[in-house]
Amino acid sequence: MPNEHIVRSYDEELRRLRDMVARMGGLAERQVAEATRALVRRDTDLATAVIGRDTQIDALEREVEAYCVRLLALRQPMAADLRVIIAAMKASNDLERIGDYASNAAKRAVVLASLPAIGSLAGFERMAQLVQENLKAAMDAFVNNDAEAARRVWEADEPVDAIYNGIFRELLTFMMEDPRNITAATHMLFIAKNLERIGDHTTNIAERIYYAVLGDNITEERPKADQSAYAVVRPAGG
Amino acid sequence: MPNEHIVRSYDEELRRLRDMVARMGGLAERQVAEATRALVRRDTDLATAVIGRDTQIDALEREVEAYCVRLLALRQPMAADLRVIIAAMKASNDLERIGDYASNAAKRAVVLASLPAIGSLAGFERMAQLVQENLKAAMDAFVNNDAEAARRVWEADEPVDAIYNGIFRELLTFMMEDPRNITAATHMLFIAKNLERIGDHTTNIAERIYYAVLGDNITEERPKADQSAYAVVRPAGG
Repeated sequence: MPNEHIVRSYDEELRRLRDMVARMGGLAERQVAEATRALVRRDTDLATAVIGRDTQIDALEREVEAYCVRLLALRQPMAADLRVIIAAMKASNDLERIGDYASNAAKRAVVLASLPAIGSLAGFERMAQLVQENLKAAMDAFVNNDAEAARRVWEADEPVDAIYNGIFRELLTFMMEDPRNITAATHMLFIAKNLERIGDHTTNIAERIYYAVLGDNITEERPKADQSAYAVVRPAGG
Repeated sequence: MPNEHIVRSYDEELRRLRDMVARMGGLAERQVAEATRALVRRDTDLATAVIGRDTQIDALEREVEAYCVRLLALRQPMAADLRVIIAAMKASNDLERIGDYASNAAKRAVVLASLPAIGSLAGFERMAQLVQENLKAAMDAFVNNDAEAARRVWEADEPVDAIYNGIFRELLTFMMEDPRNITAATHMLFIAKNLERIGDHTTNIAERIYYAVLGDNITEERPKADQSAYAVVRPAGG
Protein backbone atom coordinates (compact mmCIF):
# COMPACT_ATOMS: atom_id res chain seq x y z
CA MET A 1 0.00 0.00 0.00
CA PRO A 2 2.26 2.86 -1.09
CA ASN A 3 1.17 6.47 -0.47
CA GLU A 4 -0.97 5.50 2.47
CA HIS A 5 -0.78 8.70 4.47
CA ILE A 6 -3.71 8.18 6.79
CA VAL A 7 -3.05 6.22 9.94
CA ARG A 8 -6.08 4.01 10.09
CA SER A 9 -7.66 2.81 13.25
CA TYR A 10 -7.30 -0.86 13.95
CA ASP A 11 -11.03 -1.48 13.49
CA GLU A 12 -10.87 0.23 10.13
CA GLU A 13 -7.98 -2.02 9.14
CA LEU A 14 -9.86 -5.18 10.07
CA ARG A 15 -12.90 -3.88 8.17
CA ARG A 16 -10.67 -3.27 5.19
CA LEU A 17 -9.27 -6.79 5.44
CA ARG A 18 -12.77 -8.25 5.46
CA ASP A 19 -13.64 -6.14 2.42
CA MET A 20 -10.54 -7.33 0.56
CA VAL A 21 -11.50 -10.95 1.14
CA ALA A 22 -15.12 -10.24 0.12
CA ARG A 23 -13.89 -8.58 -3.07
CA MET A 24 -11.78 -11.64 -3.80
CA GLY A 25 -14.85 -13.80 -3.12
CA GLY A 26 -16.94 -11.70 -5.49
CA LEU A 27 -14.38 -12.17 -8.24
CA ALA A 28 -14.18 -15.92 -7.60
CA GLU A 29 -17.98 -16.10 -7.77
CA ARG A 30 -17.96 -14.26 -11.09
CA GLN A 31 -15.29 -16.64 -12.44
CA VAL A 32 -17.44 -19.65 -11.54
CA ALA A 33 -20.52 -18.05 -13.10
CA GLU A 34 -18.78 -17.11 -16.33
CA ALA A 35 -16.87 -20.38 -16.72
CA THR A 36 -20.22 -22.15 -16.49
CA ARG A 37 -21.89 -19.73 -18.88
CA ALA A 38 -19.00 -20.24 -21.33
CA LEU A 39 -19.52 -24.00 -21.06
CA VAL A 40 -23.27 -23.85 -21.62
CA ARG A 41 -23.15 -21.33 -24.47
CA ARG A 42 -20.03 -22.87 -26.05
CA ASP A 43 -18.57 -19.37 -25.86
CA THR A 44 -14.79 -19.61 -26.25
CA ASP A 45 -14.28 -15.82 -26.01
CA LEU A 46 -15.91 -15.78 -22.60
CA ALA A 47 -13.91 -18.87 -21.55
CA THR A 48 -10.69 -17.15 -22.64
CA ALA A 49 -11.63 -14.05 -20.63
CA VAL A 50 -12.14 -16.22 -17.52
CA ILE A 51 -8.74 -17.88 -18.01
CA GLY A 52 -7.07 -14.48 -18.40
CA ARG A 53 -8.72 -13.07 -15.28
CA ASP A 54 -7.29 -15.77 -13.00
CA THR A 55 -4.14 -13.73 -12.38
CA GLN A 56 -6.34 -11.05 -10.73
CA ILE A 57 -7.41 -13.52 -8.07
CA ASP A 58 -3.80 -14.61 -7.58
CA ALA A 59 -2.80 -10.96 -7.15
CA LEU A 60 -5.59 -10.41 -4.61
CA GLU A 61 -4.38 -13.42 -2.62
CA ARG A 62 -0.91 -11.92 -2.39
CA GLU A 63 -2.47 -8.56 -1.40
CA VAL A 64 -4.53 -10.16 1.38
CA GLU A 65 -1.50 -12.05 2.64
CA ALA A 66 0.72 -8.96 2.62
CA TYR A 67 -1.96 -7.01 4.49
CA CYS A 68 -2.33 -9.80 7.06
CA VAL A 69 1.43 -9.93 7.62
CA ARG A 70 1.43 -6.16 8.08
CA LEU A 71 -1.40 -6.34 10.62
CA LEU A 72 0.30 -9.18 12.48
CA ALA A 73 3.60 -7.32 12.64
CA LEU A 74 2.28 -3.83 13.47
CA ARG A 75 -0.77 -4.55 15.58
CA GLN A 76 0.26 -7.77 17.28
CA PRO A 77 -3.35 -8.82 17.60
CA MET A 78 -4.70 -11.19 20.22
CA ALA A 79 -7.62 -13.62 20.50
CA ALA A 80 -10.57 -12.75 18.24
CA ASP A 81 -8.64 -10.27 16.07
CA LEU A 82 -5.85 -12.78 15.54
CA ARG A 83 -8.43 -15.39 14.53
CA VAL A 84 -10.00 -13.02 11.99
CA ILE A 85 -6.62 -12.34 10.39
CA ILE A 86 -5.78 -16.03 10.19
CA ALA A 87 -9.25 -16.78 8.79
CA ALA A 88 -8.73 -14.08 6.13
CA MET A 89 -5.37 -15.55 5.16
CA LYS A 90 -6.73 -19.09 4.92
CA ALA A 91 -9.93 -18.01 3.16
CA SER A 92 -7.87 -16.17 0.55
CA ASN A 93 -6.01 -19.44 -0.01
CA ASP A 94 -9.29 -21.29 -0.59
CA LEU A 95 -10.53 -18.52 -2.89
CA GLU A 96 -7.35 -18.74 -4.93
CA ARG A 97 -7.97 -22.47 -5.36
CA ILE A 98 -11.58 -21.77 -6.34
CA GLY A 99 -10.26 -19.38 -8.98
CA ASP A 100 -7.94 -22.11 -10.27
CA TYR A 101 -10.81 -24.58 -10.56
CA ALA A 102 -12.94 -22.03 -12.43
CA SER A 103 -10.07 -21.29 -14.79
CA ASN A 104 -9.47 -25.01 -15.38
CA ALA A 105 -13.20 -25.44 -16.14
CA ALA A 106 -12.95 -22.58 -18.65
CA LYS A 107 -9.98 -24.27 -20.37
CA ARG A 108 -12.04 -27.43 -20.73
CA ALA A 109 -15.02 -25.36 -21.99
CA VAL A 110 -12.78 -24.20 -24.86
CA VAL A 111 -12.09 -27.82 -25.86
CA LEU A 112 -15.74 -28.83 -25.42
CA ALA A 113 -16.89 -26.07 -27.78
CA SER A 114 -14.95 -27.88 -30.53
CA LEU A 115 -16.53 -31.29 -29.82
CA PRO A 116 -20.07 -32.58 -30.43
CA ALA A 117 -22.36 -31.65 -27.52
CA ILE A 118 -23.50 -34.54 -25.30
CA GLY A 119 -26.17 -34.70 -22.64
CA SER A 120 -27.79 -31.86 -20.77
CA LEU A 121 -25.82 -29.18 -18.97
CA ALA A 122 -28.67 -28.46 -16.55
CA GLY A 123 -26.89 -30.29 -13.71
CA PHE A 124 -23.76 -28.19 -14.24
CA GLU A 125 -25.80 -24.97 -14.16
CA ARG A 126 -27.56 -26.06 -10.99
CA MET A 127 -24.28 -27.03 -9.31
CA ALA A 128 -22.65 -23.75 -10.33
CA GLN A 129 -25.63 -21.77 -9.06
CA LEU A 130 -25.54 -23.54 -5.69
CA VAL A 131 -21.81 -23.07 -5.17
CA GLN A 132 -22.11 -19.39 -6.15
CA GLU A 133 -24.92 -18.86 -3.66
CA ASN A 134 -22.90 -20.57 -0.95
CA LEU A 135 -19.81 -18.57 -1.79
CA LYS A 136 -21.78 -15.32 -1.62
CA ALA A 137 -23.36 -16.34 1.68
CA ALA A 138 -19.91 -17.22 3.06
CA MET A 139 -18.55 -13.80 2.13
CA ASP A 140 -21.57 -12.10 3.75
CA ALA A 141 -21.00 -14.18 6.88
CA PHE A 142 -17.37 -13.05 6.94
CA VAL A 143 -18.17 -9.37 6.46
CA ASN A 144 -20.91 -9.53 9.13
CA ASN A 145 -18.89 -11.73 11.51
CA ASP A 146 -21.90 -14.06 11.62
CA ALA A 147 -21.16 -17.58 12.91
CA GLU A 148 -24.70 -18.87 12.39
CA ALA A 149 -24.69 -17.78 8.76
CA ALA A 150 -21.31 -19.52 8.37
CA ARG A 151 -22.77 -22.71 9.83
CA ARG A 152 -25.65 -22.58 7.33
CA VAL A 153 -23.15 -22.35 4.45
CA TRP A 154 -21.26 -25.29 5.90
CA GLU A 155 -24.46 -27.36 5.91
CA ALA A 156 -25.56 -26.31 2.43
CA ASP A 157 -22.96 -28.25 0.43
CA GLU A 158 -24.77 -31.59 0.45
CA PRO A 159 -27.01 -30.97 -2.62
CA VAL A 160 -23.87 -30.02 -4.57
CA ASP A 161 -22.36 -33.43 -3.87
CA ALA A 162 -25.64 -35.14 -4.76
CA ILE A 163 -25.82 -33.43 -8.17
CA TYR A 164 -22.18 -34.32 -8.76
CA ASN A 165 -22.86 -38.01 -8.16
CA GLY A 166 -25.73 -37.91 -10.67
CA ILE A 167 -23.56 -36.21 -13.30
CA PHE A 168 -20.78 -38.72 -12.71
CA ARG A 169 -23.06 -41.69 -13.41
CA GLU A 170 -24.73 -40.03 -16.37
CA LEU A 171 -21.42 -39.18 -18.05
CA LEU A 172 -20.08 -42.71 -17.60
CA THR A 173 -23.24 -43.99 -19.25
CA PHE A 174 -22.73 -41.63 -22.21
CA MET A 175 -19.17 -42.88 -22.57
CA MET A 176 -20.33 -46.47 -22.62
CA GLU A 177 -22.98 -45.77 -25.24
CA ASP A 178 -20.61 -44.28 -27.77
CA PRO A 179 -16.81 -44.07 -27.69
CA ARG A 180 -17.01 -40.80 -29.60
CA ASN A 181 -18.42 -39.24 -26.40
CA ILE A 182 -15.39 -40.19 -24.33
CA THR A 183 -13.17 -37.15 -24.74
CA ALA A 184 -16.01 -34.69 -24.18
CA ALA A 185 -17.46 -36.67 -21.27
CA THR A 186 -14.03 -36.86 -19.62
CA HIS A 187 -13.59 -33.09 -19.73
CA MET A 188 -17.15 -32.70 -18.42
CA LEU A 189 -16.35 -35.12 -15.57
CA PHE A 190 -13.42 -32.95 -14.56
CA ILE A 191 -15.52 -29.77 -14.76
CA ALA A 192 -18.15 -31.38 -12.51
CA LYS A 193 -15.36 -32.41 -10.13
CA ASN A 194 -14.03 -28.84 -10.19
CA LEU A 195 -17.47 -27.51 -9.18
CA GLU A 196 -17.68 -30.11 -6.43
CA ARG A 197 -14.23 -29.06 -5.16
CA ILE A 198 -15.31 -25.40 -5.27
CA GLY A 199 -18.19 -26.40 -2.99
CA ASP A 200 -15.73 -28.10 -0.61
CA HIS A 201 -13.48 -25.04 -0.47
CA THR A 202 -16.52 -22.88 0.28
CA THR A 203 -17.27 -25.22 3.17
CA ASN A 204 -13.68 -24.77 4.39
CA ILE A 205 -14.13 -21.02 4.32
CA ALA A 206 -17.36 -21.33 6.32
CA GLU A 207 -15.54 -23.43 8.93
CA ARG A 208 -12.82 -20.81 9.25
CA ILE A 209 -15.34 -17.99 9.67
CA TYR A 210 -17.20 -19.94 12.33
CA TYR A 211 -13.92 -20.50 14.17
CA ALA A 212 -12.88 -16.86 13.78
CA VAL A 213 -16.15 -15.63 15.31
CA LEU A 214 -16.54 -18.12 18.16
CA GLY A 215 -13.03 -19.47 18.76
CA ASP A 216 -14.50 -22.95 18.51
CA ASN A 217 -14.77 -25.51 15.70
CA ILE A 218 -18.01 -26.75 14.20
CA THR A 219 -18.05 -30.13 15.88
CA GLU A 220 -20.66 -32.24 14.10
CA GLU A 221 -19.83 -34.41 11.13
CA ARG A 222 -20.57 -32.45 7.99
CA PRO A 223 -23.37 -33.91 5.85
CA LYS A 224 -21.43 -35.24 2.88
CA ALA A 225 -23.06 -36.91 -0.08
CA ASP A 226 -20.13 -37.38 -2.49
CA GLN A 227 -19.85 -41.13 -2.91
CA SER A 228 -18.44 -40.97 -6.43
CA ALA A 229 -15.01 -42.26 -5.41
CA TYR A 230 -16.72 -45.59 -4.76
CA ALA A 231 -19.00 -45.54 -7.83
CA VAL A 232 -19.14 -48.43 -10.27
CA VAL A 233 -21.15 -47.96 -13.46
CA ARG A 234 -21.47 -50.94 -15.79
CA PRO A 235 -22.09 -50.78 -19.53
CA ALA A 236 -25.58 -51.85 -20.57
CA GLY A 237 -25.35 -55.57 -21.35
CA GLY A 238 -21.62 -55.40 -20.53
CA MET B 1 -0.11 -28.52 24.85
CA PRO B 2 -1.36 -29.19 28.38
CA ASN B 3 1.16 -30.08 31.11
CA GLU B 4 3.93 -28.24 29.38
CA HIS B 5 6.02 -27.15 32.31
CA ILE B 6 9.17 -26.16 30.51
CA VAL B 7 9.35 -22.62 29.20
CA ARG B 8 10.96 -23.12 25.84
CA SER B 9 13.22 -20.63 24.17
CA TYR B 10 11.82 -18.98 21.08
CA ASP B 11 14.36 -20.71 18.81
CA GLU B 12 13.38 -24.02 20.31
CA GLU B 13 9.74 -23.25 19.59
CA LEU B 14 10.44 -22.44 15.94
CA ARG B 15 12.50 -25.62 15.66
CA ARG B 16 9.61 -27.54 17.11
CA LEU B 17 7.22 -25.92 14.63
CA ARG B 18 9.44 -26.97 11.72
CA ASP B 19 9.59 -30.49 13.12
CA MET B 20 5.79 -30.65 13.42
CA VAL B 21 5.41 -29.66 9.77
CA ALA B 22 8.08 -32.15 8.73
CA ARG B 23 6.32 -34.90 10.68
CA MET B 24 3.09 -34.00 8.89
CA GLY B 25 4.99 -34.11 5.59
CA GLY B 26 6.41 -37.53 6.43
CA LEU B 27 2.93 -38.86 7.11
CA ALA B 28 1.58 -37.34 3.88
CA GLU B 29 4.46 -38.96 1.98
CA ARG B 30 3.65 -42.33 3.51
CA GLN B 31 -0.02 -41.93 2.59
CA VAL B 32 0.91 -41.27 -1.03
CA ALA B 33 3.28 -44.25 -1.07
CA GLU B 34 0.78 -46.66 0.47
CA ALA B 35 -2.20 -45.48 -1.57
CA THR B 36 -0.12 -46.18 -4.67
CA ARG B 37 1.06 -49.54 -3.37
CA ALA B 38 -2.57 -50.45 -2.56
CA LEU B 39 -3.51 -49.54 -6.13
CA VAL B 40 -0.71 -51.55 -7.72
CA ARG B 41 -1.11 -54.64 -5.52
CA ARG B 42 -4.93 -54.44 -5.49
CA ASP B 43 -4.62 -54.52 -1.72
CA THR B 44 -7.89 -53.30 -0.19
CA ASP B 45 -6.69 -53.77 3.40
CA LEU B 46 -3.82 -51.40 2.79
CA ALA B 47 -6.16 -48.96 1.00
CA THR B 48 -8.54 -49.05 3.97
CA ALA B 49 -5.65 -48.36 6.34
CA VAL B 50 -4.68 -45.29 4.26
CA ILE B 51 -8.26 -43.99 4.35
CA GLY B 52 -8.45 -44.47 8.12
CA ARG B 53 -5.15 -42.69 8.70
CA ASP B 54 -6.31 -39.46 7.02
CA THR B 55 -7.74 -38.15 10.31
CA GLN B 56 -4.18 -38.18 11.74
CA ILE B 57 -3.09 -35.65 9.11
CA ASP B 58 -6.16 -33.52 9.82
CA ALA B 59 -5.33 -33.60 13.53
CA LEU B 60 -1.71 -32.59 12.81
CA GLU B 61 -2.96 -29.63 10.76
CA ARG B 62 -5.03 -28.39 13.70
CA GLU B 63 -2.02 -28.93 15.97
CA VAL B 64 0.26 -26.89 13.69
CA GLU B 65 -2.32 -24.12 13.43
CA ALA B 66 -2.88 -23.99 17.20
CA TYR B 67 0.88 -23.86 17.76
CA CYS B 68 1.25 -21.06 15.19
CA VAL B 69 -1.54 -19.04 16.81
CA ARG B 70 0.14 -19.51 20.17
CA LEU B 71 3.49 -18.33 18.80
CA LEU B 72 1.87 -15.34 17.10
CA ALA B 73 0.04 -14.33 20.27
CA LEU B 74 2.82 -14.93 22.79
CA ARG B 75 5.95 -14.09 20.83
CA GLN B 76 4.63 -11.41 18.49
CA PRO B 77 7.25 -12.31 15.92
CA MET B 78 8.58 -9.95 13.26
CA ALA B 79 10.08 -10.31 9.78
CA ALA B 80 11.74 -13.69 9.12
CA ASP B 81 10.20 -15.43 12.14
CA LEU B 82 6.75 -14.22 11.18
CA ARG B 83 7.30 -15.52 7.65
CA VAL B 84 8.33 -18.95 8.95
CA ILE B 85 5.19 -19.20 11.06
CA ILE B 86 2.96 -18.19 8.15
CA ALA B 87 4.77 -20.63 5.85
CA ALA B 88 4.22 -23.40 8.42
CA MET B 89 0.52 -22.61 8.63
CA LYS B 90 0.09 -22.54 4.86
CA ALA B 91 2.27 -25.61 4.29
CA SER B 92 0.17 -27.55 6.80
CA ASN B 93 -2.86 -26.56 4.74
CA ASP B 94 -1.24 -27.94 1.58
CA LEU B 95 -0.20 -31.12 3.40
CA GLU B 96 -3.76 -31.64 4.60
CA ARG B 97 -4.94 -31.38 0.99
CA ILE B 98 -2.22 -33.85 -0.07
CA GLY B 99 -3.54 -36.22 2.58
CA ASP B 100 -7.06 -35.83 1.18
CA TYR B 101 -5.88 -36.64 -2.33
CA ALA B 102 -4.03 -39.74 -1.10
CA SER B 103 -7.10 -40.88 0.80
CA ASN B 104 -9.32 -40.30 -2.24
CA ALA B 105 -6.87 -42.34 -4.35
CA ALA B 106 -7.07 -45.14 -1.78
CA LYS B 107 -10.90 -45.12 -1.96
CA ARG B 108 -10.67 -45.52 -5.71
CA ALA B 109 -8.05 -48.29 -5.28
CA VAL B 110 -10.68 -50.23 -3.30
CA VAL B 111 -13.11 -50.01 -6.23
CA LEU B 112 -10.42 -50.81 -8.77
CA ALA B 113 -9.49 -54.01 -6.92
CA SER B 114 -13.01 -55.26 -7.72
CA LEU B 115 -12.78 -54.46 -11.45
CA PRO B 116 -10.74 -56.09 -14.22
CA ALA B 117 -7.23 -54.62 -14.38
CA ILE B 118 -6.45 -52.45 -17.38
CA GLY B 119 -3.18 -51.08 -18.71
CA SER B 120 0.08 -50.74 -16.88
CA LEU B 121 0.40 -48.97 -13.55
CA ALA B 122 4.06 -48.10 -14.15
CA GLY B 123 3.19 -44.45 -14.87
CA PHE B 124 1.31 -44.18 -11.58
CA GLU B 125 4.24 -45.66 -9.67
CA ARG B 126 6.65 -43.28 -11.36
CA MET B 127 4.43 -40.25 -10.65
CA ALA B 128 3.97 -41.29 -7.02
CA GLN B 129 7.71 -41.80 -6.61
CA LEU B 130 8.47 -38.35 -8.03
CA VAL B 131 5.92 -36.52 -5.88
CA GLN B 132 7.16 -38.38 -2.79
CA GLU B 133 10.75 -37.39 -3.54
CA ASN B 134 9.71 -33.78 -4.05
CA LEU B 135 7.67 -33.77 -0.87
CA LYS B 136 10.59 -35.17 1.09
CA ALA B 137 12.96 -32.62 -0.43
CA ALA B 138 10.48 -29.82 0.41
CA MET B 139 10.33 -30.91 4.05
CA ASP B 140 14.14 -31.05 4.21
CA ALA B 141 14.28 -27.55 2.71
CA PHE B 142 11.88 -26.34 5.40
CA VAL B 143 13.76 -27.93 8.28
CA ASN B 144 17.08 -26.61 6.95
CA ASN B 145 15.70 -23.18 5.99
CA ASP B 146 17.22 -23.73 2.55
CA ALA B 147 15.81 -21.46 -0.20
CA GLU B 148 17.90 -23.03 -2.97
CA ALA B 149 16.65 -26.50 -2.12
CA ALA B 150 13.10 -25.12 -2.13
CA ARG B 151 13.65 -23.67 -5.58
CA ARG B 152 14.88 -27.03 -6.86
CA VAL B 153 11.67 -28.68 -5.59
CA TRP B 154 9.64 -25.96 -7.30
CA GLU B 155 11.38 -26.73 -10.58
CA ALA B 156 11.09 -30.50 -10.27
CA ASP B 157 7.34 -30.82 -10.85
CA GLU B 158 7.48 -30.74 -14.65
CA PRO B 159 8.11 -34.47 -15.21
CA VAL B 160 5.09 -35.23 -12.99
CA ASP B 161 2.86 -33.21 -15.31
CA ALA B 162 4.38 -34.89 -18.34
CA ILE B 163 3.66 -38.40 -17.01
CA TYR B 164 0.13 -37.30 -16.13
CA ASN B 165 -0.50 -36.17 -19.71
CA GLY B 166 0.67 -39.54 -21.01
CA ILE B 167 -1.58 -41.44 -18.58
CA PHE B 168 -4.54 -39.22 -19.51
CA ARG B 169 -4.21 -40.06 -23.20
CA GLU B 170 -3.58 -43.74 -22.60
CA LEU B 171 -6.63 -44.12 -20.37
CA LEU B 172 -8.89 -42.39 -22.88
CA THR B 173 -7.64 -44.80 -25.51
CA PHE B 174 -8.48 -47.79 -23.28
CA MET B 175 -11.97 -46.39 -22.77
CA MET B 176 -12.47 -46.06 -26.50
CA GLU B 177 -11.27 -49.61 -27.14
CA ASP B 178 -13.75 -51.25 -24.80
CA PRO B 179 -16.66 -49.71 -22.85
CA ARG B 180 -16.07 -52.26 -20.09
CA ASN B 181 -12.87 -50.34 -19.30
CA ILE B 182 -14.69 -47.06 -18.68
CA THR B 183 -15.45 -47.26 -14.97
CA ALA B 184 -11.96 -48.46 -14.07
CA ALA B 185 -10.27 -46.00 -16.43
CA THR B 186 -12.31 -43.11 -14.98
CA HIS B 187 -11.21 -43.92 -11.41
CA MET B 188 -7.64 -44.25 -12.67
CA LEU B 189 -7.93 -40.84 -14.37
CA PHE B 190 -8.94 -39.29 -11.07
CA ILE B 191 -6.11 -41.03 -9.22
CA ALA B 192 -3.63 -39.70 -11.79
CA LYS B 193 -5.17 -36.25 -11.36
CA ASN B 194 -4.83 -36.59 -7.58
CA LEU B 195 -1.12 -37.36 -7.96
CA GLU B 196 -0.72 -34.40 -10.29
CA ARG B 197 -2.47 -32.14 -7.73
CA ILE B 198 -0.21 -33.52 -4.99
CA GLY B 199 2.72 -32.40 -7.12
CA ASP B 200 1.17 -28.92 -7.43
CA HIS B 201 0.66 -28.62 -3.68
CA THR B 202 4.28 -29.65 -3.13
CA THR B 203 5.26 -26.84 -5.47
CA ASN B 204 3.14 -24.43 -3.39
CA ILE B 205 4.96 -25.55 -0.27
CA ALA B 206 8.31 -24.98 -1.98
CA GLU B 207 7.21 -21.44 -2.93
CA ARG B 208 6.23 -20.68 0.65
CA ILE B 209 9.54 -21.97 2.00
CA TYR B 210 11.47 -19.87 -0.50
CA TYR B 211 9.47 -16.81 0.56
CA ALA B 212 9.91 -17.60 4.25
CA VAL B 213 13.70 -17.81 3.89
CA LEU B 214 14.31 -14.86 1.57
CA GLY B 215 11.23 -12.63 2.00
CA ASP B 216 10.94 -12.63 -1.77
CA ASN B 217 8.87 -14.63 -4.23
CA ILE B 218 10.29 -16.96 -6.87
CA THR B 219 9.70 -14.70 -9.83
CA GLU B 220 10.13 -16.82 -12.94
CA GLU B 221 7.25 -18.63 -14.56
CA ARG B 222 7.21 -22.16 -13.26
CA PRO B 223 7.91 -24.82 -15.92
CA LYS B 224 4.48 -26.40 -16.29
CA ALA B 225 3.78 -29.29 -18.61
CA ASP B 226 0.16 -30.18 -17.75
CA GLN B 227 -1.72 -29.59 -20.97
CA SER B 228 -4.39 -32.20 -20.27
CA ALA B 229 -7.16 -29.61 -19.82
CA TYR B 230 -6.81 -28.98 -23.53
CA ALA B 231 -6.38 -32.59 -24.63
CA VAL B 232 -8.53 -34.15 -27.33
CA VAL B 233 -8.22 -37.90 -27.93
CA ARG B 234 -10.19 -39.40 -30.79
CA PRO B 235 -11.36 -43.01 -31.06
CA ALA B 236 -9.49 -45.08 -33.65
CA GLY B 237 -11.50 -44.76 -36.86
CA GLY B 238 -13.99 -42.55 -34.98
